Amino acid sequence: MTTRFAFEKLGQDGKARLGRISTPRGEIRTPAFMPVGTAATVKAMMPESVADTGADILLGNTYHLMLRPTAERIDRLGGLHKFMNWSKPILTDSGGFQVMSLASLRKLTEDGVTFKSHIDGSKHMLSPERSMEIQRLLGSDIVMCFDECPALPADRKRIEESMRLSMRWAARSREAFGDRPGYALFGIQQGGLEEDLRGESARALRDIGFEGYAIGGLAVGEGQEAMFACLDYAPDQLPEDRPRYLMGVGKPDDIVGAVKRGVDMMDCVLPSRSGRTGQAFTRHGVVNIKNARHADDPRPLDENCSCPACRNYSRAYLHHVFRAQEMISGMLLTWHNLHYYQEIMQGMRDAIASGTFADWEARFHADRAEGDIPPL
Amino acid sequence: MTTRFAFEKLGQDGKARLGRISTPRGEIRTPAFMPVGTAATVKAMMPESVADTGADILLGNTYHLMLRPTAERIDRLGGLHKFMNWSKPILTDSGGFQVMSLASLRKLTEDGVTFKSHIDGSKHMLSPERSMEIQRLLGSDIVMCFDECPALPADRKRIEESMRLSMRWAARSREAFGDRPGYALFGIQQGGLEEDLRGESARALRDIGFEGYAIGGLAVGEGQEAMFACLDYAPDQLPEDRPRYLMGVGKPDDIVGAVKRGVDMMDCVLPSRSGRTGQAFTRHGVVNIKNARHADDPRPLDENCSCPACRNYSRAYLHHVFRAQEMISGMLLTWHNLHYYQEIMQGMRDAIASGTFADWEARFHADRAEGDIPPL
Repeated sequence: MTTRFAFEKLGQDGKARLGRISTPRGEIRTPAFMPVGTAATVKAMMPESVADTGADILLGNTYHLMLRPTAERIDRLGGLHKFMNWSKPILTDSGGFQVMSLASLRKLTEDGVTFKSHIDGSKHMLSPERSMEIQRLLGSDIVMCFDECPALPADRKRIEESMRLSMRWAARSREAFGDRPGYALFGIQQGGLEEDLRGESARALRDIGFEGYAIGGLAVGEGQEAMFACLDYAPDQLPEDRPRYLMGVGKPDDIVGAVKRGVDMMDCVLPSRSGRTGQAFTRHGVVNIKNARHADDPRPLDENCSCPACRNYSRAYLHHVFRAQEMISGMLLTWHNLHYYQEIMQGMRDAIASGTFADWEARFHADRAEGDIPPL
Repeated sequence: MTTRFAFEKLGQDGKARLGRISTPRGEIRTPAFMPVGTAATVKAMMPESVADTGADILLGNTYHLMLRPTAERIDRLGGLHKFMNWSKPILTDSGGFQVMSLASLRKLTEDGVTFKSHIDGSKHMLSPERSMEIQRLLGSDIVMCFDECPALPADRKRIEESMRLSMRWAARSREAFGDRPGYALFGIQQGGLEEDLRGESARALRDIGFEGYAIGGLAVGEGQEAMFACLDYAPDQLPEDRPRYLMGVGKPDDIVGAVKRGVDMMDCVLPSRSGRTGQAFTRHGVVNIKNARHADDPRPLDENCSCPACRNYSRAYLHHVFRAQEMISGMLLTWHNLHYYQEIMQGMRDAIASGTFADWEARFHADRAEGDIPPL
């Protein structure tokens, strides 16, 4: 096993890239989808099951973990990997995004953000330096720069000022991160939907220098068309020889469109959150298992899926346990959704390797256009 | 694999019996503890995990299943085993007990009980004949007679009349069950805490003839001392060569005391329900994982336990995920509790086989008396 963090590009088909990230905790096959383990657990899943779906890395949320059980406690207990029984790589966000979406009484200054916990109202502070400290205490393999991310739409001046603040914070994050062999710090490109601001942000990040580069500030309300228009240029502004991570994306077709445009890594709560609300993602689109049409249906969600939910249970069973509010409903549908997401990633990796990404993408869209199997 | 239902007594130590029930769906090692899978799922567990704990059989609830998704639907879908992905034996109760505890607007006649569903208020009927039909539709391997069970304390006249009604219903259950090779019908002894009524009930059941005999009407508020006093004679009143099943029991020390008195099978929601409320059963008694003393404790619940919760997680983690109301809390603690219950059963089976039940029991109580490990 390597002692260094490294990225190797193994192939390319159009703009879609096949690659491998090496870390002391294991390899990450790219394009990679990272399940979200907010509070030191991917909700409704045992970590060995998350690994069984094919995930090489998962994401932890700095904001949630700093509030409960606290980074200092996790450090005393041996770090996040040991705490949550996940030995593969972990990426943590910086906390910035969730302070903005979850905390109350936020106060933003050049130094950082003060806020009150959404759990108990206690007062906390996040800055580039504190975020680096927390992510180090957690033992995160891939650390994200502390940044500010305005919701869209926002006016150009607000986006420009926010991006420049984030770039000053990126320099402070790099400085505070220091020299940590085997660990990576990723810069985060901002600039909203403005190509020139995205370019300015990318240049600022390249001047600082990072092990990887994220595209931030998307999937915040702008819609898929606008996001794809931005992704038509944003990845190209980032270094060719480093992984590119699109934060907080997305639905299956968002993910395919992002990979097509040169993105290597993504994360989203959607497959796990939807699993708990009775929504299953399949090759043929979304299935709402609570729909009465499934009550007597002996067929699996997807007869070609090899996950436990599809291998061992009927739609009728999944419908029943959802209606009865049984925990196994969320357990099975989350497993299915995470499995399906990883199948998409594997399908894209295989297609890029064989130079057939366009065919794969056409089949992906054709399968979805077919829609769910007709009722019996 | 056998095509018949059979019970073989393999050993005895004092009154404690070691045995084996053979069914076409697999063997049940006795003394056996049956986890409860009320609504076609042992809450918070995958069925393969339930099997991993060592369970040979689980219990389904006729009352819940007849209301949702209905026995007819489960029959159309291929039976309860297939529906819930559990291939080993299943015992179903008759529905009588839960009609009394959960349904509203109950009306009891010689024929049976009419009631309204606690889920949607719809009107339903249970009788010996209907209960047999439902349990046949479910595909239950061990079917229970439809009976009436008064809460204790109750006056002798009420208990006597209720017992005699249950005995008439037992004869009708036997008649309605018919001849079903490979399946078993168990009679249920009633009679409260009155030895002569228990004796009369046992004689009535023996005259009808069953594949197994349950002790009903205990663990309904009488306390452990009164229950054990009844168990000092009740099992002896039942046939020596058939399994004896004590319904709805219980805490670990209830179970040990029952086996000591000649009981072969038990069921209880306690290990699974407690797992979802943060209570863990260990060799050293009950651990309340929500207690602040565990917040920084890197030690497992029980260092000698081989379940996933103890092998892979600290008390601090279990405390954190309980406080954060994460589903993995109920998943891990339920697994631990069911594993611990099955360890008790295996310990008793081994002790009976080697004629050391008294030593085993003394150690069981001594371990509990020690109490939980001291805080760090």
